[in-house]
Amino acid sequence: MVPAPPPPALPRLTLVLGGARSGKSRHAEALVTTSAPPWTYVATAQAFDEEMTERIAQHKARRPDEWQTLETTHDLAALVRTHASPTPMLIDCLTLWLSNVMLADRDVAAACADLIEALAAARGPIVAVSNEVGLGIVPDNALARAFRDAQGRLNQDVAALADRVILMAAGLPLTLK
Amino acid sequence: MVPAPPPPALPRLTLVLGGARSGKSRHAEALVTTSAPPWTYVATAQAFDEEMTERIAQHKARRPDEWQTLETTHDLAALVRTHASPTPMLIDCLTLWLSNVMLADRDVAAACADLIEALAAARGPIVAVSNEVGLGIVPDNALARAFRDAQGRLNQDVAALADRVILMAAGLPLTLK
Amino acid sequence: MVPAPPPPALPRLTLVLGGARSGKSRHAEALVTTSAPPWTYVATAQAFDEEMTERIAQHKARRPDEWQTLETTHDLAALVRTHASPTPMLIDCLTLWLSNVMLADRDVAAACADLIEALAAARGPIVAVSNEVGLGIVPDNALARAFRDAQGRLNQDVAALADRVILMAAGLPLTLK
Repeated sequence: MVPAPPPPALPRLTLVLGGARSGKSRHAEALVTTSAPPWTYVATAQAFDEEMTERIAQHKARRPDEWQTLETTHDLAALVRTHASPTPMLIDCLTLWLSNVMLADRDVAAACADLIEALAAARGPIVAVSNEVGLGIVPDNALARAFRDAQGRLNQDVAALADRVILMAAGLPLTLK
Repeated sequence: MVPAPPPPALPRLTLVLGGARSGKSRHAEALVTTSAPPWTYVATAQAFDEEMTERIAQHKARRPDEWQTLETTHDLAALVRTHASPTPMLIDCLTLWLSNVMLADRDVAAACADLIEALAAARGPIVAVSNEVGLGIVPDNALARAFRDAQGRLNQDVAALADRVILMAAGLPLTLK
Repeated sequence: MVPAPPPPALPRLTLVLGGARSGKSRHAEALVTTSAPPWTYVATAQAFDEEMTERIAQHKARRPDEWQTLETTHDLAALVRTHASPTPMLIDCLTLWLSNVMLADRDVAAACADLIEALAAARGPIVAVSNEVGLGIVPDNALARAFRDAQGRLNQDVAALADRVILMAAGLPLTLK
């Protein structure tokens, strides 16, 4: 019997992009757990309502104990700078972080530039999850349009840095890079 | 002259995924009609307004007489269980069915689980059309968010069962699986 | 040292499709500027508010002087008919043009048919940018739904004519055709 080939090593930076409920988090977790534990999980969600509390609980229940969970709502760049290679770090997700930054009325462009700088300097491996939000009709309200623009720019910047970019649809990965 | 190769046989279950007006129905029909007739068309649309009546009429006008049309607004799983192989069955579409189920205030999770069970047991060939709805900005209202989540989960579950998954954009197919 | 291979010649018609802030314009410009200058840039944006004025200025600042800029808000078909081959023409973008046509209450189907006829007759090379807008939740208002349908149909028709169709996500191209 021929042994299965070893899984490909995680590259320095992977971006897992996709829509809502496209299986992004699950796929990112599967990528990280091809490496030996421990693994670091960076949660950026703010549990500001029941719907979000429920979603966070569901995600957490899926992760076994080999995960160390760190939480940050706004200071993601600082946390990335503390990343100790070679423990893989999963960031779930850039969209919630960006939304926290915008709602806190911080300087979005500066925060994104700082995050990009931190990611560029990190030794990895890091897997970042993010939403693609620009494929619907132009939103009515200006904040949603500003968010959509900021998210699109951030995704482009992270994708440019990334060694691997995957677009998820219906739980299936499509390699963009 | 070299004769054209025969079209590939339809697998047990195909999912044709895509946005609004992406050519999903047309592509699904083209897949089904590579087999010899007759073909079964399962319509899940409810003609509750003029816009939808018009859309149903347009779809119907495109289909030749070799199609037998069955209509179901809510009981899609039951209809899938009556499917007689090897006549190909086209389900158009899961999104309208899911929306009917939600608007009727039925138990969405149970209805989806029942449909998945029926699809898993079917001998096929079945081609199911569904919308990808999660690639825009988070919707304002809770019902739309719940729908988006339910649709995403259903698409993932059907895609996991399917032998072939195709994402349509601008009338062009992209093979995900 | 082996010299880099020459860039592939631009085909008669290329469609660059994508979401908001997906890098469509930048990629389309990169495709055009693989050819020798001059290049024609067709701007369809109407600067009816500050947000749009800013966006137009950003796009313009990125383009060097080898670009000749033509502006048209509604009569894109006429402008395509004046295109003098072999100077590459970049149309940025079909979505703004379609939105101008709809807001002016013109006959959308006739305008689209006229544009398709002009594109079919053009010798090219032409690169057209367009938005994919159908991958979110069904919009609440009827005008947005009508726009989404018209845009989907136009994208399908242009894609059918095109020699090459590219879907952009996070600044990365995915070849559909």
